[in-house]
Amino acid sequence: MKFYNSLGPNPRLVRMFMLEKGMELPSEEVDIMAGANRQEPYLSANPWGEMPSLELDDGRVIAETTAICEYLEEQQPAPALVGSDAAERANTRMWLRRVEIHITGPMTDAFRSGAGQAMFKDRRHLVPQAVDDWAAIAREGTARLDAAIAGRDFIAGDSFGLADIYAYCLIDFGGGVGQPFDPANANVASWFQRIASRPSAEKSIHPAAAAGGMRA
Amino acid sequence: MKFYNSLGPNPRLVRMFMLEKGMELPSEEVDIMAGANRQEPYLSANPWGEMPSLELDDGRVIAETTAICEYLEEQQPAPALVGSDAAERANTRMWLRRVEIHITGPMTDAFRSGAGQAMFKDRRHLVPQAVDDWAAIAREGTARLDAAIAGRDFIAGDSFGLADIYAYCLIDFGGGVGQPFDPANANVASWFQRIASRPSAEKSIHPAAAAGGMRA
Repeated sequence: MKFYNSLGPNPRLVRMFMLEKGMELPSEEVDIMAGANRQEPYLSANPWGEMPSLELDDGRVIAETTAICEYLEEQQPAPALVGSDAAERANTRMWLRRVEIHITGPMTDAFRSGAGQAMFKDRRHLVPQAVDDWAAIAREGTARLDAAIAGRDFIAGDSFGLADIYAYCLIDFGGGVGQPFDPANANVASWFQRIASRPSAEKSIHPAAAAGGMRA
Repeated sequence: MKFYNSLGPNPRLVRMFMLEKGMELPSEEVDIMAGANRQEPYLSANPWGEMPSLELDDGRVIAETTAICEYLEEQQPAPALVGSDAAERANTRMWLRRVEIHITGPMTDAFRSGAGQAMFKDRRHLVPQAVDDWAAIAREGTARLDAAIAGRDFIAGDSFGLADIYAYCLIDFGGGVGQPFDPANANVASWFQRIASRPSAEKSIHPAAAAGGMRA
């Protein structure tokens, strides 16, 4: 297998997932700041130009972070980060969706059409007039998550897993681009520190991001 | 197990998935037009109020259509609609994401803040000023999908599966609420007819929708 790697919260979350698994894969760097992900030769691997992606041994390429992490979990089930049975996996997948729909999706949209506009203006159809609402939706979603996780240590329940990795990497990124979560969300704040204290949290930061004080 | 069922493209896609599997589950109707999904007793099952959801035999409740369909596939693997091995499953999950991010997500957002505003104004944070852009993004995504599926019969490759069910039910719904796809997308148009011709496509329409000429 080969991991196409770059700066950014999405590759980071797969790196953090692999660190938690103790997996190491050969990787190839793609310079997203220079737009290399939107050009050949990367487009031959992933015609949609998204980062990261995973080339399988037979040459097929899988993109999208959750698809990649699920694939890696199937290759190496322990420690279980998606889940150790069908119900646990379903629960993780449900929480991944809730976090994305209510927090990290609108947060990312707000970034791309707002603070990240210079980078994304030639790459995506941006909607600048929606930025303030998207950021507000992410704040509302964070408050909702805060209520939902009262009394438990992790997003999907009592054990650490992919929903935590996904949410942490995206929310950490948001904090660096003008969308920090409100620390009045005390459950989210303590959850965030709990995940941040794992060695994989620091180790998953891309060297080029760390050099610039970024967290992705 | 018990399936909490209602009108709407999301419950429909799970119904279509179950029909393709030949699975039948006890179900309970939730009247979303009256907002019953945002009230007790449903909120005790799914505090986030989304439809549909699946109550497992031990009382746990799984929401989010893809999480439900993956769970059902694990209970009854044949016929494989997510995939019969890890690479097939990863590929299906990747295509589900691409369809959602580029087509059905923005289409649904445009519906809720646009044509569906009366229903959703007290249920969600709407962004009416983004409606035209969201609809445009969905059209651009449809053109991109059209290019991607040239030469093959199904979205994720050569066999029918969850990505087709998901995309079909959402795109069919979009066509009924002012967002039909452009038939100049000839590959999408022939794919759409291919899925529409399956018995599960008609059988999955909710009786209350069918009575009103709707397709969800």
